[in-house]
Amino acid sequence: MRIFSYLTRALHGHHPSSYAKLLLVCSISSGGLVAHAESQSDKETLNQGEPKKKRVVVLGTGWAGTSFLKDLDISSYDVQVVSPRNYFAFTPLLPSVTCGTVEARSIVEPVRNIIKKKNGQILFWEAECLKINAEKRQVCCLSNVDDNLAGRNDFCLHYDYLVIAVGAQVNTFNIPGVLEYCHFLKELEDARKIRRTVIDCFEKAVLPGLNEEERRTNLHFVIVGGGPTGIEFAAELHDYIHEDLVNLYPGVKDLVKITVIQSGDHILNTFDERISSFAEQKFQRDGIEVLTGCRVVRVSDKLIHMKLKSTAEDMSISHGMVVWSTGVGTRPVVKDFMEQIGQGSRLVLATDEWLQVKGCENEDISTIFKAADKDNSGTLTVDELREVIEDILIRYPQMDLYLKSNHLFDVTDLFRDSDGNEREEVDIEGFKLALAHVDSQMKSLPATAQVAAQQGTYLSRCFNHMEQCKSNPEGPLRFRGSGRHQFRPFRRPSNDEARESAVRENMYKHFGQFAPLGGEQAAAELPGDWVSLGRSTQWLWYSVYASKQVSWRTRILVVSDWTRRKVFGRDSSRI
Amino acid sequence: MRIFSYLTRALHGHHPSSYAKLLLVCSISSGGLVAHAESQSDKETLNQGEPKKKRVVVLGTGWAGTSFLKDLDISSYDVQVVSPRNYFAFTPLLPSVTCGTVEARSIVEPVRNIIKKKNGQILFWEAECLKINAEKRQVCCLSNVDDNLAGRNDFCLHYDYLVIAVGAQVNTFNIPGVLEYCHFLKELEDARKIRRTVIDCFEKAVLPGLNEEERRTNLHFVIVGGGPTGIEFAAELHDYIHEDLVNLYPGVKDLVKITVIQSGDHILNTFDERISSFAEQKFQRDGIEVLTGCRVVRVSDKLIHMKLKSTAEDMSISHGMVVWSTGVGTRPVVKDFMEQIGQGSRLVLATDEWLQVKGCENEDISTIFKAADKDNSGTLTVDELREVIEDILIRYPQMDLYLKSNHLFDVTDLFRDSDGNEREEVDIEGFKLALAHVDSQMKSLPATAQVAAQQGTYLSRCFNHMEQCKSNPEGPLRFRGSGRHQFRPFRRPSNDEARESAVRENMYKHFGQFAPLGGEQAAAELPGDWVSLGRSTQWLWYSVYASKQVSWRTRILVVSDWTRRKVFGRDSSRI
Repeated sequence: MRIFSYLTRALHGHHPSSYAKLLLVCSISSGGLVAHAESQSDKETLNQGEPKKKRVVVLGTGWAGTSFLKDLDISSYDVQVVSPRNYFAFTPLLPSVTCGTVEARSIVEPVRNIIKKKNGQILFWEAECLKINAEKRQVCCLSNVDDNLAGRNDFCLHYDYLVIAVGAQVNTFNIPGVLEYCHFLKELEDARKIRRTVIDCFEKAVLPGLNEEERRTNLHFVIVGGGPTGIEFAAELHDYIHEDLVNLYPGVKDLVKITVIQSGDHILNTFDERISSFAEQKFQRDGIEVLTGCRVVRVSDKLIHMKLKSTAEDMSISHGMVVWSTGVGTRPVVKDFMEQIGQGSRLVLATDEWLQVKGCENEDISTIFKAADKDNSGTLTVDELREVIEDILIRYPQMDLYLKSNHLFDVTDLFRDSDGNEREEVDIEGFKLALAHVDSQMKSLPATAQVAAQQGTYLSRCFNHMEQCKSNPEGPLRFRGSGRHQFRPFRRPSNDEARESAVRENMYKHFGQFAPLGGEQAAAELPGDWVSLGRSTQWLWYSVYASKQVSWRTRILVVSDWTRRKVFGRDSSRI
Repeated sequence: MRIFSYLTRALHGHHPSSYAKLLLVCSISSGGLVAHAESQSDKETLNQGEPKKKRVVVLGTGWAGTSFLKDLDISSYDVQVVSPRNYFAFTPLLPSVTCGTVEARSIVEPVRNIIKKKNGQILFWEAECLKINAEKRQVCCLSNVDDNLAGRNDFCLHYDYLVIAVGAQVNTFNIPGVLEYCHFLKELEDARKIRRTVIDCFEKAVLPGLNEEERRTNLHFVIVGGGPTGIEFAAELHDYIHEDLVNLYPGVKDLVKITVIQSGDHILNTFDERISSFAEQKFQRDGIEVLTGCRVVRVSDKLIHMKLKSTAEDMSISHGMVVWSTGVGTRPVVKDFMEQIGQGSRLVLATDEWLQVKGCENEDISTIFKAADKDNSGTLTVDELREVIEDILIRYPQMDLYLKSNHLFDVTDLFRDSDGNEREEVDIEGFKLALAHVDSQMKSLPATAQVAAQQGTYLSRCFNHMEQCKSNPEGPLRFRGSGRHQFRPFRRPSNDEARESAVRENMYKHFGQFAPLGGEQAAAELPGDWVSLGRSTQWLWYSVYASKQVSWRTRILVVSDWTRRKVFGRDSSRI
């Protein structure tokens, strides 16, 4: 694989001139951004008097893609965008769309409207990228419009830089029946389908000729996954049913049940414990059942089969609708790309601090390990590690941050095993694991819209300063090769930096995280470890979500939807 | 067929006691209403101390069905409603939904919201009636929700009175390819599909790798049918494209074309001639091509094949999207019912002046004809007719109105052939034709929402006064049997009545008809043969359509949609 050696050489810095550039970001979330580029700029510039604009192909128009496009200075790039959806969707409001609290149209903005401000110089094509050919530097795409229309649906585009912002897909964990019988909450169409299905369940449940058991089954709504999305949906559904639907279907109001299945011990377990227990108490009062410690093993058209983690006992419950909200996985096109660049064994596309593709850190770790392992024992002792720690900190600047932010002043803390016991020495695998742990702590920012959006903005800044930073690199010192890295890395500020408000434009700014719990109650984790609970938090949620809208049109529509809901309730027409 | 003899006897009045009642209305339009009832009330009343409430089953929740339900006094009936859609849709705004001028959600109101005001005593089931069994007095229905839900999807209901308000379906005239390749504008889902397809056509047309011919084909929008719906859609589409889409797809704006195919010589040919030519001039200025005198003979995925009526020449045009809007036909369930009651040879279910099922007028005409044809020649002379005209006017009260309203004071005018030439005598077929002509002039009210709604209201009034009118019949004198008809007939007022404002609650009130032509221009035919054209008419249209909304919710939503469109344009997200 030629591309792989390319990448390896490029990242090892054997060619200080930018023979091949690779930019790659990946955040597996509602938005996911990957930038990847190769160019033989020097050659091209020599051949032509006027240098040809570099072509940037952007895949995806989610949070990352649109924020990248918004801030990109298009005067120096030929920008082409490919996405299977010709709109940007404000995904954090998807749970609200499922119940008609907000209309689907109110949270979308056509991509062409967003890029129109760029004088029409950005080209957009509504198509899905099916194949990234890293070697030929082209993407092959297929439009999904009706085959009856004239002309070919497929086309390929050459790129100099590729920004992969295709986001993730739902993760079924290969559990049988999930794809066939579950609903998801990933795309706008998913949310609309849930809305129709909720009404279907009620309409079916009131038909003549059903017995009470059948009515109960149809009105049993099950949410698998107790993360923020699943919990918000459960809360929305509870409000929808108890504020609107029970008035329209009075005959079956006592048969409705909502159940949340969570594999962990608590719902919202990535949040602060106070939020988690506030949510559990709220749900208990609302009559939403929470089954914790349950792992779903199979889903059929009418049953969910589970295993209780504690007792390994099998159990099953009947359902009218299941919403699967357990996490996200990598899209096939990205998976295929990962195989091309030697990341085939990873779950998620890896990027470095500059959001560039990462193809070779294993070699580097081995090199450092071998250099450190002076007695060639195959293991590193604490003393051996101490001698090379400076080198490691150079190669892994984030480790310095990690150590500081965790108030670990001794590298021996890295040697602790998963149970926290100190170890005298580690082998290469343990060493990799320790570094991977640092990575996961420091770099896997949460898979959220705000991360994706900020990554997009960061990347557009890199593109905008490409030439300038080539002559005046602003990044940290290189430790292989010479000079400085071209750009400052994208990273989470250390706690010190956050406290001192020294957060810079290349750093991730965490604005907090909300968990709306229904009944005008919400919980929020705010920056600085603040926790906010209750009705005022819901109003904070309204203001933040309204202000974060991508256009004035959607802002006004969302606010008027909220108002409409308060005045007239939610619409239950099955359209 | 036992039911048929039932009907015949009932309508002939052989049983003056109400052994079998038949109520039936049919207006083939956006709303279509049919009431049909049979009851053995006397028997039942004798058997029980407290008379059981009669069950009224209503099929359909369009204009007729909902207006019937709104005004029905439910204290004396057990009302059950079956409709495949759990909402009422304000169908006159469907063309606006196709282009996002108004959102689909803004023109629907859940049926359960409408009937909720009746204290929950009206039962509603979301299902489609597949079979009316007139003999057993039951309807068999099938719910179209997901089969995965628990319980049976089918059920049958017994009725004492049946109100058939299922509306019509599109009429393809069995032209090959229409069902497969054309879009329709009958249901809400049709309008949303058109909206998506318009965007598909644009997205496909801008893809790389298409030649100009292919782009042109994809951007050729063809409307078959120059009636009010087709014309309004063409106008909406023109506005959508030229106000919104050309800004987003600037590269292809010169390739867009809209064509209207009309079999007659003019578009809007049911309107006043001034409106028709105003529309044609407007379309010519807008660049909308109107092909008149063309009959479509076949539609394929990319071509429409036509025959020019004048020269019988074949021609074909390529298209990206075809909207078929040529007229309506009878639904299969009604067709099947018509066969059961001996109307199998008719195109449309026939009703009498009381909106009751009509199964036997042909016998009556033969009877009158035979009585009049004194010399048994098989033909009626003018003199023979003069002798029986009084009888005819009794049997056909509408003929009197017809003669008056057309200022015909002599029955000889009825003898004119289709070219207007006087005839000396007519045979039985000519006589039937003459009466049918009166019928079509007097009774086939236009297939519009306002007719259906008023028929629904009329019928609910009949039901509300059922008992009272049994003892004190308010209708005209019966001429077969004795006494008076139970109710005043539903009819169009004569011109005299209209002029003198003597229009009564049983009479059809015509509020006029609009033809919006795009660019804030509209044409309207108002009562009293007024014609209104231009921008002020569009504002009149806005006010009338806003005021006619079924609920305050939809009224506010529709008005805010119009405002949003003016401020932000129409949304082009392909969702």
